[in-house]
Amino acid sequence: MSLLYALDIIGTFVFAISGIRLAAKKKMDLFGAMVIGFVTAVGGGTTRDVLLGSYPVSWVQDVNLPLTIALAVPFTFIFRKYIVNLKRTFFMFDTIGIALFTISGMQKALSTGIHPALAIVMGMVSAVMGGVIRDILCNEIPLIFRKEIYATACLAGGLVFSLLDYYTDLTENVIYLITTVVIIAIRVVSIKYDLSMPKMKDAPMDGAD
Amino acid sequence: MSLLYALDIIGTFVFAISGIRLAAKKKMDLFGAMVIGFVTAVGGGTTRDVLLGSYPVSWVQDVNLPLTIALAVPFTFIFRKYIVNLKRTFFMFDTIGIALFTISGMQKALSTGIHPALAIVMGMVSAVMGGVIRDILCNEIPLIFRKEIYATACLAGGLVFSLLDYYTDLTENVIYLITTVVIIAIRVVSIKYDLSMPKMKDAPMDGAD
Amino acid sequence: MSLLYALDIIGTFVFAISGIRLAAKKKMDLFGAMVIGFVTAVGGGTTRDVLLGSYPVSWVQDVNLPLTIALAVPFTFIFRKYIVNLKRTFFMFDTIGIALFTISGMQKALSTGIHPALAIVMGMVSAVMGGVIRDILCNEIPLIFRKEIYATACLAGGLVFSLLDYYTDLTENVIYLITTVVIIAIRVVSIKYDLSMPKMKDAPMDGAD
Repeated sequence: MSLLYALDIIGTFVFAISGIRLAAKKKMDLFGAMVIGFVTAVGGGTTRDVLLGSYPVSWVQDVNLPLTIALAVPFTFIFRKYIVNLKRTFFMFDTIGIALFTISGMQKALSTGIHPALAIVMGMVSAVMGGVIRDILCNEIPLIFRKEIYATACLAGGLVFSLLDYYTDLTENVIYLITTVVIIAIRVVSIKYDLSMPKMKDAPMDGAD
Repeated sequence: MSLLYALDIIGTFVFAISGIRLAAKKKMDLFGAMVIGFVTAVGGGTTRDVLLGSYPVSWVQDVNLPLTIALAVPFTFIFRKYIVNLKRTFFMFDTIGIALFTISGMQKALSTGIHPALAIVMGMVSAVMGGVIRDILCNEIPLIFRKEIYATACLAGGLVFSLLDYYTDLTENVIYLITTVVIIAIRVVSIKYDLSMPKMKDAPMDGAD
Repeated sequence: MSLLYALDIIGTFVFAISGIRLAAKKKMDLFGAMVIGFVTAVGGGTTRDVLLGSYPVSWVQDVNLPLTIALAVPFTFIFRKYIVNLKRTFFMFDTIGIALFTISGMQKALSTGIHPALAIVMGMVSAVMGGVIRDILCNEIPLIFRKEIYATACLAGGLVFSLLDYYTDLTENVIYLITTVVIIAIRVVSIKYDLSMPKMKDAPMDGAD
């Protein structure tokens, strides 16, 4: 089992837990929690695959992904007390998760021969759409549109990936590593210093219909 | 016209009515009601087809499906007084509807050669996603995540279907019948005794972010 | 650059602005505004392409579309004061936009050989789904289901397109022109006289579950 695949499984597991936790807050039943965990974990990759017309979509090819998600439900239930305290650990896993999903999403997109700028978009879609679908199903405005640097870190990482891939002779693994470090660094720095993208509310557009 | 096809049309009609009724409650106009009816009826099958990459999607192949849905609008409007009183009848049609959609969804999924466990998921997606999209468009947390045994009945039926298909020599029609009976029985019993899946709220996760 | 393509770019630009304005009202950050602008502009065509299984989807083929949308963000920010006052101008652009998207959507659908009635639906989907996705992401009941003649104008235009295409020998450009005029006329007249589709609320269905 390659390192990339192992990280993919870990990312899936952590993303599933974030969905299950929101479902629990919304007082959904166990089934609802499992479904929300599922779409959080696979929603990004599935959206990318559907947009690219790349069939079958990822989780249909690899039964380990659904299995990993199914395991996340009892895990979250049993360790619920600790998960709350492990916020920092989960932040780190989540950040590694979006880094990895950005990279694997870009690779899959590039392999279909699309424009590199669109591959960066697809990498970001892979990383963040799961969370967007999770929030829509739970009837919330997607968190990603409201809080901190998140998708922007994916876009920046995707840009670095593209430039290194195009202009240097670095091996794939080194490019992966640098991209991951860039995404994690942007996330950590933006959280530490409470950075966020400027809000559009600064514009006096209240009269807009 | 086969029995399976007739049931498919009835299921489509009943699902469309459930969408139109919610649209009416939300004070949408006639067009909105028609669209909500439409997505409720075809949303599950369409999601399954898009996930499987099985083109063209079902309602594009069979113009009878859109026609059935179009007829559901005046039907609901004319018989609105009776439909409210026919709750029990509609519950039965709806339950037959999800049973049938589970079966036809599984069959279509299996025909693409995916893992049987995923075919069960696809059967459930076919049966319930229409209602999920209906609720999202009406800005509600999907009912399926909040109330009673519903999707779980589809999963249980799908499991029975799989086991019978794999381990027995029963004909297709007999397997369909048993699966339908299982799904209906689970629904009826769970409603009668007010059974539901355990809620995740039992977990003290309020501190979760 | 053909007239049709120029109008397509203008439609994309105007639709993106409508998304960015709603995002601003919802106090999203710049990234959120860009994403909402993006999905508003390409959501309709993408939904059509995914439903038809027509890959790659439109904006993956033509990098000018994402570029146009990216430009709409600073444009909206810089000219925010004027955009509010330009309501009438934007109404006109928006109406031309849905007319064009209806036509190009129908054409793409017809080219896959589907039933003309479904092609009309696909034309309407192309024109309105971007706005529907915009409203879902912003956690609102889609405007289209609540207000004025909008999607109905697209359906009427699609019907005119179909009839002219089938029963007359008019050239494509003439059919485009007539369809556009029909859609604009329906929109303008319905706004001027405050026409709307009858609401379903007229039905005493409050007892519906």
